[in-house]
Amino acid sequence: MQDVRMDAESLRALMERIFAAEGFAKEDAAQIADVLMQADLFGIESHGAQRMMYYHQNIKSGSVSVGARPEIVRETPVSALIDGHFAMGQITSAFAMNTAMEKAKRTGVGLCAVRNSSHFGIAGYYTLMAARQGLAAFSMTNTGPIMTPTFGREMMLGTNPLAFCMPADPTPFWFDASTTVVTLGKVEVYDKRAKPMPQGWTIGGDGSTQTDAAAANRAILAGEPGGILPLGGAGEITGGHKGYGLAVMVEALTGVLAQGLLSPQMLGPHGDHTSHFFMAFDPGMFGDAAAIRAHMSEYLDMLRRSEPLPGFERVYTAGDKAFAAQEDRLKNGVPVEAKTLRELQSIAADLGVDMPKTMQ
Amino acid sequence: MQDVRMDAESLRALMERIFAAEGFAKEDAAQIADVLMQADLFGIESHGAQRMMYYHQNIKSGSVSVGARPEIVRETPVSALIDGHFAMGQITSAFAMNTAMEKAKRTGVGLCAVRNSSHFGIAGYYTLMAARQGLAAFSMTNTGPIMTPTFGREMMLGTNPLAFCMPADPTPFWFDASTTVVTLGKVEVYDKRAKPMPQGWTIGGDGSTQTDAAAANRAILAGEPGGILPLGGAGEITGGHKGYGLAVMVEALTGVLAQGLLSPQMLGPHGDHTSHFFMAFDPGMFGDAAAIRAHMSEYLDMLRRSEPLPGFERVYTAGDKAFAAQEDRLKNGVPVEAKTLRELQSIAADLGVDMPKTMQ
Repeated sequence: MQDVRMDAESLRALMERIFAAEGFAKEDAAQIADVLMQADLFGIESHGAQRMMYYHQNIKSGSVSVGARPEIVRETPVSALIDGHFAMGQITSAFAMNTAMEKAKRTGVGLCAVRNSSHFGIAGYYTLMAARQGLAAFSMTNTGPIMTPTFGREMMLGTNPLAFCMPADPTPFWFDASTTVVTLGKVEVYDKRAKPMPQGWTIGGDGSTQTDAAAANRAILAGEPGGILPLGGAGEITGGHKGYGLAVMVEALTGVLAQGLLSPQMLGPHGDHTSHFFMAFDPGMFGDAAAIRAHMSEYLDMLRRSEPLPGFERVYTAGDKAFAAQEDRLKNGVPVEAKTLRELQSIAADLGVDMPKTMQ
Repeated sequence: MQDVRMDAESLRALMERIFAAEGFAKEDAAQIADVLMQADLFGIESHGAQRMMYYHQNIKSGSVSVGARPEIVRETPVSALIDGHFAMGQITSAFAMNTAMEKAKRTGVGLCAVRNSSHFGIAGYYTLMAARQGLAAFSMTNTGPIMTPTFGREMMLGTNPLAFCMPADPTPFWFDASTTVVTLGKVEVYDKRAKPMPQGWTIGGDGSTQTDAAAANRAILAGEPGGILPLGGAGEITGGHKGYGLAVMVEALTGVLAQGLLSPQMLGPHGDHTSHFFMAFDPGMFGDAAAIRAHMSEYLDMLRRSEPLPGFERVYTAGDKAFAAQEDRLKNGVPVEAKTLRELQSIAADLGVDMPKTMQ
């Protein structure tokens, strides 16, 4: 079995069938699959079909509750506190962002804090929902502990990503980044390929830089001292305290505001029962929406047209590579690694779901 | 003349007298001085009395308009667009944050976009205004161009700081950071002291790391290719594209949303006519405000009590060092460098303001 390119609609249909077989209602299965497909289309394989086994295991273990529905437990015209009741994060988060968007359309802005959720896929999926309707948006989540604070040796913070989207043409400004130097997924990739990691990604319990991906991955999974560094690196010289501060900001807006679990209270790097924060607002509150959108598009073009450094072809803006990948994948299929293919087959067999001919 | 410690109230009174002599109304002079004092009390000398000469020159040149008042030009119950009419950034920004706070108290949240402002001091001053009244808050600004985008050689972005404050006890979580690795002020300090800079702060037009602070500072002031790197450093390996993306996010929420000048449209690194973004919201929308505040305080304590790396005394959270510095300076005086003292004397002489006995 080898890496393949699978046509996007077949892969989507397979994921939908799998989630239906897990027990989800048709539209919920479609919602979950849509989040995973967006990651695969955008070239963020770590959060696409590759995550199916992880979700399958969470459903089996009962960490995720198949029948649960998110519930608004507190509400104002501009805000909602939502309890996910441990439903799949994608269902709860799409519900929460839709709630924020409805409020933004009525009042100009909507803020939703969510607790008792679970892994919600790529943070940027939800901001894109808003941008498609002309709204600017934020999306954040806390996660299980993998990041050490500046000067610290215990993993006290999650990947804690922050996503922001601003409408623009031909594609929105689409920013989605962890507040760590890299995600655990990157460490895992280097581990699988038995490659040494670049300097400055992870530290051991003594504070020294680790380049041994297998050792780093093992120590993180075991919850041993050391971990992934905040964006900006070790110490304060290159701004590591800024990445650390951004991660605490995300924790304040998720676990704290939603009164849910905090990163260090979760079990393991994939610790679940996460909290999220979503916000949508209408740029049209501040002026002519079309003019603001054009202003954003022009600025992005100024950046793209600015001179690249010698040896580089061009300057990108956040989202450029994702939308280019999407164009390619819709035309030429979605790359699926052999290992992921085997996992999909195993899940399908487990649930009695037929695999498409091309994947057998 | 040598570096001194000046008692805080004398320094504040001197700055107020100077701004009154510049032509500002008494309460405006007090407001501007309060922003500068907060920076000096927090140990952020680059944005305290050290900036008096810069403001004096901007007022003299007419880049800042002494008689101007900020004006709300568009408004909803949750938002305002404010035109600063080139008034001092501190006056406009305090007005804007107060507007956001009033809206937050009435509706739960307030967002203000500001254009045609000027240098507003430390971004975190304004979030602190909100935190004192139990509100969480954001503050951002664009600035003149000093940052190169990932893979780029032209300075297309400002320092573009992002500040966030969340109420907590005994002191709030107070985060205020540029989206560059370092601010231009740090480069200037290394230039003045003729010290080589650490690797990874600035690049030349060929993309190579610069450690020569004098050369870097000169090139930035001249607008030559190269500049300060985004948080995360050069390229993508250590997440430089994340710092770059955060800077564009700040630009989208300031210059774009307020329909003002964008960083690359400003003249020089201290380019004025900046745009800002302020947001305040009431955590009490999401639950019991006191419980959320206690939850935040507990998390900050968990971080502070977590194990430090060998060789480090403790783990800090954003604001810890600032509030400790404030305690020290209120008791022992504010450090004022000899050069700043000479500048204050020169401004005072220029305006016919008496210097305090201790500063003559």
